[in-house]
Amino acid sequence: MSILVVGSVAYDTVETITAKYDRLLGGSASYFSLAASHFAPVRAVGVVGDDFRQDDLDLLANHGVDVSGIERKQGETFFWSGRYHADMIERDTLVTELGVFADFRPEIAAMWRSTPYLFLANIHPALQYHVLDSMTAPKLSILDTMNLWIETTPDDLQTVLGRVDVLLVNDSEAYLLTRERSLRKAAKAIQAMGPTRVVVKKGEHGAVLFGRDSILAVPALLLPEVIDPTGAGDSFAGGFVGSLAAADASSDDTDAVFRQAMLDGTAVASFCPEGFSVEGLLRVTSSTLKKRLDELRAMMIP
Amino acid sequence: MSILVVGSVAYDTVETITAKYDRLLGGSASYFSLAASHFAPVRAVGVVGDDFRQDDLDLLANHGVDVSGIERKQGETFFWSGRYHADMIERDTLVTELGVFADFRPEIAAMWRSTPYLFLANIHPALQYHVLDSMTAPKLSILDTMNLWIETTPDDLQTVLGRVDVLLVNDSEAYLLTRERSLRKAAKAIQAMGPTRVVVKKGEHGAVLFGRDSILAVPALLLPEVIDPTGAGDSFAGGFVGSLAAADASSDDTDAVFRQAMLDGTAVASFCPEGFSVEGLLRVTSSTLKKRLDELRAMMIP
Repeated sequence: MSILVVGSVAYDTVETITAKYDRLLGGSASYFSLAASHFAPVRAVGVVGDDFRQDDLDLLANHGVDVSGIERKQGETFFWSGRYHADMIERDTLVTELGVFADFRPEIAAMWRSTPYLFLANIHPALQYHVLDSMTAPKLSILDTMNLWIETTPDDLQTVLGRVDVLLVNDSEAYLLTRERSLRKAAKAIQAMGPTRVVVKKGEHGAVLFGRDSILAVPALLLPEVIDPTGAGDSFAGGFVGSLAAADASSDDTDAVFRQAMLDGTAVASFCPEGFSVEGLLRVTSSTLKKRLDELRAMMIP
Repeated sequence: MSILVVGSVAYDTVETITAKYDRLLGGSASYFSLAASHFAPVRAVGVVGDDFRQDDLDLLANHGVDVSGIERKQGETFFWSGRYHADMIERDTLVTELGVFADFRPEIAAMWRSTPYLFLANIHPALQYHVLDSMTAPKLSILDTMNLWIETTPDDLQTVLGRVDVLLVNDSEAYLLTRERSLRKAAKAIQAMGPTRVVVKKGEHGAVLFGRDSILAVPALLLPEVIDPTGAGDSFAGGFVGSLAAADASSDDTDAVFRQAMLDGTAVASFCPEGFSVEGLLRVTSSTLKKRLDELRAMMIP
């Protein structure tokens, strides 16, 4: 079953204390698509500028991502630059230049409107709503968001939340959104806003699924070295949604299929920090992925 | 099989944003003993001042803790005061008055020197070493420490590390001790210092066991409300060591018994933040504990 993702396609310049790379492929839709493509066909919707390299589009296409929804406009591609602290967790944003992304208004091609799996990456909730409106009742819709929208467009965000099946969110965002201080209460509050299920991402500490009637805590795999954690959350989302699409899951299913998706998301996301940009994700094969899944299960089973 | 614990017995004044309590029972040995007592007999070694209430000694004794090793000296009981931030994780220490603890030199009674399970709570490593020297080859020795000793008495700490079976440590302390930035590498470096196994405590994010040939990540239980997290780490240690003592475990055993101890430690520690001081721990019964263990397993099994 196919997945439609709407999000950013960007160029990132990232500095760590030991290295720096300039203007390499980034953006939520890029990470998501490459991660999800190991599980199901992906249709990407986004916008890039005339500076965007054909090689990068080809890279996505070669991994089974249908890039015909990535519009090329006159102007600059969304550019982000950040610098990680020594802990490889804290980071400072140095530059954000929206470029053509500033006027991004995703239009979904008629043929794509019935795509059964929809991932709304972190963009303005009004745009997310617009996409939802364009779609013909997706089988499963999964939403991401961020503190910016929680703080500046809470009403738009509430409207979108009322229409999606799953919210994927960081722990700090879950607290901000609900003004709760316990993850359990925050998840319950979010479920009252609309989504049947909530996935709280905790970076190096893993992720927690709050399901219909169960909770699953999945640890992150323990990497010997972190090169660049940018995009790990979007890669997790890609594996998570990809797994659900491969299983033909719907919101009415039991938690079991969502629990497996948590493992798949965690396993595929573990490759992301092992290289700059999407480099780590390019090392995913069915055999390396299976090895990570085995390792993850061994870390979890009491 | 009995456990000997050497650590602090204290009075704590703790403020949160909603409440404050004054001079209630605290200290690593108190939390550890009450948690461990649900699994195995505990012998506590510590020191208190002449201000220490008999009621508090009775409380420990009534929970099966042999308090005959808690010496009463002229002077003040170790006093600590702290204030938690709104997140109930960050805290500021307001007062530390060592009192009679400043001259604490644990002497182990002859009858107790052959106690098979030894927990060296967070005290000066030279004192930990002195206790190790007094003991007749404990079956299993478990060490706790803190950033203060890692930074100020690294040589003493290394000497002790060379003689214990398990190190229990916070994630930040594991990084500080090894100058590594990956938990996996940090654990490996600690294992090279002596301990066969390392348990990294991550507070609300759970704990990770680095065993002989396996890794187990255990999430913390998700509490609806945190009243006072003080002592949760020592309570975890109590459940962990208690479980090992109940199972008659030795360092040569497979990881299985240590994995179970991780669950027992997590389950018993989950009661601690639910009340001020040791109040939460007093609610532990075999049936409430079993319920938490079931809940924990349900959160873990993929």
